[in-house]
Amino acid sequence: MTTATGSTTTQLVDKHRPTLERALEAIRTREFWTPHPEHPKAYGEEAAEQGKAAFEALRGTRFELPGQPVSGEWVTSERSPYGLELDISYPRTDEGALDVLLPAMRAAMPAWRQAGPEVRAAVCLEILARISARTYEFAHAVMHTSGQAFMMAFQAGGPHAQDRGMEAVAYAYAEQTRTPARATWVKPQGKREPLRVEKEFTAVPRGVSLLIGCNTFPTWNGFPGFFASLATGNPVLVKPHPGAVLPLALTVRIARDVLGEAGFEPDLVALAAEAEGDGIARNLAVRPEIRVIDYTGSSQFGEWLEANARQAQVHTEKSGVNTVVIDSTDDYRGMLANLAFSLSLYSGQMCTTPQNLLIPASGIATDAGHRTYDDVVTDLAAAVDKLLGDDARANALLGALVNDAVRERLDAAPGRGRVALASRTVKNAEFPGATVRTPAILAVDAANPETEENCLDECFGPVSFAVAVSSTEEALALLRRTLREKGAMTVAAYTTSREVEQQVAEVCFDEPAQLSLNLTGGVYVNQTAGFSDFHGSGGNPSANCTLCDGAFVANRFRTVEVRRMSAE
Amino acid sequence: MTTATGSTTTQLVDKHRPTLERALEAIRTREFWTPHPEHPKAYGEEAAEQGKAAFEALRGTRFELPGQPVSGEWVTSERSPYGLELDISYPRTDEGALDVLLPAMRAAMPAWRQAGPEVRAAVCLEILARISARTYEFAHAVMHTSGQAFMMAFQAGGPHAQDRGMEAVAYAYAEQTRTPARATWVKPQGKREPLRVEKEFTAVPRGVSLLIGCNTFPTWNGFPGFFASLATGNPVLVKPHPGAVLPLALTVRIARDVLGEAGFEPDLVALAAEAEGDGIARNLAVRPEIRVIDYTGSSQFGEWLEANARQAQVHTEKSGVNTVVIDSTDDYRGMLANLAFSLSLYSGQMCTTPQNLLIPASGIATDAGHRTYDDVVTDLAAAVDKLLGDDARANALLGALVNDAVRERLDAAPGRGRVALASRTVKNAEFPGATVRTPAILAVDAANPETEENCLDECFGPVSFAVAVSSTEEALALLRRTLREKGAMTVAAYTTSREVEQQVAEVCFDEPAQLSLNLTGGVYVNQTAGFSDFHGSGGNPSANCTLCDGAFVANRFRTVEVRRMSAE
Repeated sequence: MTTATGSTTTQLVDKHRPTLERALEAIRTREFWTPHPEHPKAYGEEAAEQGKAAFEALRGTRFELPGQPVSGEWVTSERSPYGLELDISYPRTDEGALDVLLPAMRAAMPAWRQAGPEVRAAVCLEILARISARTYEFAHAVMHTSGQAFMMAFQAGGPHAQDRGMEAVAYAYAEQTRTPARATWVKPQGKREPLRVEKEFTAVPRGVSLLIGCNTFPTWNGFPGFFASLATGNPVLVKPHPGAVLPLALTVRIARDVLGEAGFEPDLVALAAEAEGDGIARNLAVRPEIRVIDYTGSSQFGEWLEANARQAQVHTEKSGVNTVVIDSTDDYRGMLANLAFSLSLYSGQMCTTPQNLLIPASGIATDAGHRTYDDVVTDLAAAVDKLLGDDARANALLGALVNDAVRERLDAAPGRGRVALASRTVKNAEFPGATVRTPAILAVDAANPETEENCLDECFGPVSFAVAVSSTEEALALLRRTLREKGAMTVAAYTTSREVEQQVAEVCFDEPAQLSLNLTGGVYVNQTAGFSDFHGSGGNPSANCTLCDGAFVANRFRTVEVRRMSAE
Repeated sequence: MTTATGSTTTQLVDKHRPTLERALEAIRTREFWTPHPEHPKAYGEEAAEQGKAAFEALRGTRFELPGQPVSGEWVTSERSPYGLELDISYPRTDEGALDVLLPAMRAAMPAWRQAGPEVRAAVCLEILARISARTYEFAHAVMHTSGQAFMMAFQAGGPHAQDRGMEAVAYAYAEQTRTPARATWVKPQGKREPLRVEKEFTAVPRGVSLLIGCNTFPTWNGFPGFFASLATGNPVLVKPHPGAVLPLALTVRIARDVLGEAGFEPDLVALAAEAEGDGIARNLAVRPEIRVIDYTGSSQFGEWLEANARQAQVHTEKSGVNTVVIDSTDDYRGMLANLAFSLSLYSGQMCTTPQNLLIPASGIATDAGHRTYDDVVTDLAAAVDKLLGDDARANALLGALVNDAVRERLDAAPGRGRVALASRTVKNAEFPGATVRTPAILAVDAANPETEENCLDECFGPVSFAVAVSSTEEALALLRRTLREKGAMTVAAYTTSREVEQQVAEVCFDEPAQLSLNLTGGVYVNQTAGFSDFHGSGGNPSANCTLCDGAFVANRFRTVEVRRMSAE
């Protein structure tokens, strides 16, 4: 397939085949690997300046998507949590535009299906390569929509998100090619001639895939579903969160460019931008053309999707109550430092941030001697204070609160327990308009009847609870109940006892949840690495899928068999 | 794990590992392979007599399930379509029994999970080996519950069903082991020491799996879900169709024996027998303990399950309108003979039997010259008559009507079109009480407004429609609409035109359906072979899954990761 620019799908396959092979190996071994450097310097001397300039050039403009059917109206919905004026407008997608766009997306499917799994993987990897080359631009886009601090926006919004996207491409390729393209079936018939049947197997897409983006991790949470669907032959309609459009709009524009250059219809990827309050996801999700949905956000809408978008394969990441069981430790300072970092990173606005820390009321054994419950809470508060004592460092770690809802929840937190650590406001010299707050820790008692209401629902943002429990046994029972009823993206535990380790693991096996044990160094419970760690288990109420495994891709396509008697 | 009988799980793994490897290769190549001979003679001189005697010994008895919590009541619900008195009673499973049984099944899970994928696969293959050794007994059990003729009950209910079960074991094993059991993740940190994390990955089950069996293919349709769930660590509760309990009751008893001998809780597999009309499936399906469901049966209940059993992964095979596009042929007699056989086999009571044959009103080109629509219909009717002219052969092919609903539908068929071939009654010398009927063919015109009502819903049983269409183009449009709105387990087409072949294939790619082209010899559209053919596509309304692929097993378990900082 030769195109105007002279690039061919064969060239793309040749270019990206080694990376695909390496990614396939990585998901098999789950050892460390990434083709996307996380150090900013790796992107060359001029990348920082160019990326910033590219981002600045987008401010105050209309974000054009040449060729995509749109309504003609423009919408502006983003507000930087840092107070920077963005004023970028996007083509609004109303029902009329969808009535043109969705048939165009469907019409683009046959050629994309015929291209086959390898070409689709190569095109997806080319999209990722172009995104990677613009990592700095994405970093600013993610920072000023999510409120992440720059370095985190750079890493989590850039290389780490790209890893997750590539991982999905690898799983999609592996799944589509585990059945051969053709087979000859020869069945012996005793003395008669054997029966011979020629069989062809074709991976066919489900239909249009809808990505419903989130405000906090538009690329990291968006890329897996985006690339899993595209690589399995489905057109992808991207409906970003109105507060975080730019990172996904850039993604859509790059994807449309690459698709067009490779000879495919750019409408295989499209943007559905809306004004705040339009609520088009609810209408889109039940349209018959939509056959796959990927969603990250509140449990309320996630459960609505699961119940109502019955015509689609629905993948959801919702809310959960992440829990840490603190039984004992042989590295008390390491534990406190590690937890303090986890609670502070991006102001606790990660779906993986610990919320409830279960601590025996009688205290715990540590390498620094016995520590009472109050000691542990006080020492943890001090560790957070120390970590965030310097404003520059605090800003670099905390980022900004993504929206008013998080701030209001934080402001109301003192009503939910005894304030063990009060949140304070941090000034940001570069962005005076940023809302930067340190995390609050509330001390509560599991025996208190109000505790359940206070901390057994997700309290998204920089609020965590030091829950006094009567024993580790009670902690495990509460963990089990939390996992079953509320779910959790992450569970952590600190213990020096092999028996308690095994008991926590058993709870996580019974009510499937991902478990981190005794993290004290530079690895944090809220971080998972593409190609190696599973993000969520898909087996408890916090999410119905994991990033990334076979199940995440296997039902995005079907295999159609065409068989005929052999000519021979 | 040593058991009372001295067999160990290690011995089972050693015994079955070569078979598992071979099965894994078969699903990769999809070439012909089976370890289960379909020729009755392969089972040894005495097998026929012993199998019949074993079946006879079951008649008029209580079917005991030692150790399974039951209600104490007994139910008898089967009626042989051949009129043979069975009078076998089964322990009734009421709500009280379930309240004991389901916790027992859950309690058995941890040890079964800990055994790991390889031991579980070996135990499953041992169960299949014991079933295989009793193929004759199963053949009689399937024959006298489904109404299949003996040879079909032997093959489809025996080796072919065992193939499908083993295929599911292979897919389950492959899926659980594509993530390694452990990995060491070492992330470079520039000049600092690299980060080292030890990771353990464990496949964990969803929970209790419910198999809702069908009347016509209790083992063939039941084994895939049964073994896919058991091999992925889930206990399996088998709720057979009240009309076809025995084949699955035997399966349950054998599985319990093998599990017990291997040192596991027999309650990992249990039977939920009911009286006709108890309707326990509806209550069971929404119980919180039930996390996986496999169902074969009516679309009505299948859709109810999909909508209501929200706590479970629901796999359904429902109704469809299987369609044959007849455009042209270079082997007219071969085509007629092949179709006649497909319509007659098991009195059209297969979920894969063609229902609508779309024939251009202007006739078709054949190697025997141009044939008008009327010619084709008349010739097909004659081919069926010829095939079934001899009563012994007719009985061997047709079997018996499974129940009164099928007979009533057949009796009402003449009202749905012009009778091109009337059904006739065939006497069965061995079983005078059998209801044996030849298939009816109704001629209808697609242009007639009543045709839609007459033949665009499934008409399960020996009734098919020769639908006159204005052109092959109209046939393809009707096929497309049928697939989208009603679904189909099978599509077939006859054409000498490569262009038409491609057009039919495109329809089957767009509305995913399995396509057989120009079958004229000993391969029939209603037959699919384990390890090679996909049964259904899972992409149209007739079924939401296929037998068997990665998607069929991938969501029956979740992978839990336990990670910790490396000691080194």
